[in-house]
Amino acid sequence: MAQRKNISDAVVRRLPRYLRYLSEMHEHGVPRISSRELGERMGLTPSQIRQDFSHFGEFGQQGYGYRVGDLLAAIRHILALDREYHMVVFGAGNIGQAVAKYPNFSERGFLIDALFDTDPELVGKKVEGIKVLHWDKAAQYLKNHSVDIGVICVPHAAGQEVADRLIQGGVRSIWNFPPRDLSVPEDVLVENVHLSESLYALVFRSKHRDTCGGQKG
Amino acid sequence: MAQRKNISDAVVRRLPRYLRYLSEMHEHGVPRISSRELGERMGLTPSQIRQDFSHFGEFGQQGYGYRVGDLLAAIRHILALDREYHMVVFGAGNIGQAVAKYPNFSERGFLIDALFDTDPELVGKKVEGIKVLHWDKAAQYLKNHSVDIGVICVPHAAGQEVADRLIQGGVRSIWNFPPRDLSVPEDVLVENVHLSESLYALVFRSKHRDTCGGQKG
Repeated sequence: MAQRKNISDAVVRRLPRYLRYLSEMHEHGVPRISSRELGERMGLTPSQIRQDFSHFGEFGQQGYGYRVGDLLAAIRHILALDREYHMVVFGAGNIGQAVAKYPNFSERGFLIDALFDTDPELVGKKVEGIKVLHWDKAAQYLKNHSVDIGVICVPHAAGQEVADRLIQGGVRSIWNFPPRDLSVPEDVLVENVHLSESLYALVFRSKHRDTCGGQKG
Repeated sequence: MAQRKNISDAVVRRLPRYLRYLSEMHEHGVPRISSRELGERMGLTPSQIRQDFSHFGEFGQQGYGYRVGDLLAAIRHILALDREYHMVVFGAGNIGQAVAKYPNFSERGFLIDALFDTDPELVGKKVEGIKVLHWDKAAQYLKNHSVDIGVICVPHAAGQEVADRLIQGGVRSIWNFPPRDLSVPEDVLVENVHLSESLYALVFRSKHRDTCGGQKG
């Protein structure tokens, strides 16, 4: 696969959206698409699309369009989505359960192997077939299992403690929902989902509607 | 308040994080903070902070630091958070309930007035004191109430239908959780929360750990 090494951050940020559109087409059996058609669906210019796709190989042909399946495979490869990831979720409340139930996660290689909580009402139950284990079992679990991604969905006062335990257990990638930055060693990656900040962005744009219109995020 | 009109997008994006740190200090009764101290807590340089804050007035004084309360008020004003917003949430499943239960939303002026769902198990119940109404009542509700923000937390096949109903009901700002872009008129704002795309970003960074380290999102 003729993938170039240096793809700009801006292109990488657009890839998940391409992935979403192309996946839907692929599921509907669409074999190929022109940059013009794809541009119309996505609200991008054909030349923008051709430029983006030129970064990762030759999938298009004049008058024929792009081969959806091949393009999808290339994007999945660039995004490192062509393998499986083992995940554990701390906090089996609403957000933790929403993550566990998120559509198609397992089909896309994101395998949620365990949920942890302290609530006796939840421990022992199953969410989407995944057993909720007691937090006390987490250290032992992390010792015996290889976990790629730890998801933190606990109330924000407990977030740092969960992060510390994940890191002690060897987890180096954290997906963090509570609205507080975590203190972590340099080799640990944290991706925050700050819901309130997304809402603030909407409110800010609504105040400046004339200059910040459209669809974002 | 000596607020300049044109604050760059990059500064605006940092404001919610300043807001979060300063709110915590304010709650703990901290009257003022130097750019050096704030920088250490936030992982920013003092000069970056001084430059950012210089955009929206004079809150600092050499050797004294910034007045936390005044700074907070200025940031809240710029972000348009110094007023109340009336919200309705469509979909009272896990994500809808997580939004309804999000800590401090109401204290921060985000008032969730109603939840809508079709599930007979949920309709008539209360979530955080907010009644879950049947989707059939939505059009009437929107006719009789002023709603600033509509939140869409339904499964993604139903997202566009909910958006259409919100827009028909006069709602012009939409906070959208299902992983699909909405088709909306130009004067309607949409802010998407695409959880899977945040996860993809984490995975991409974990593949390119050498160059994409740290805490993001």
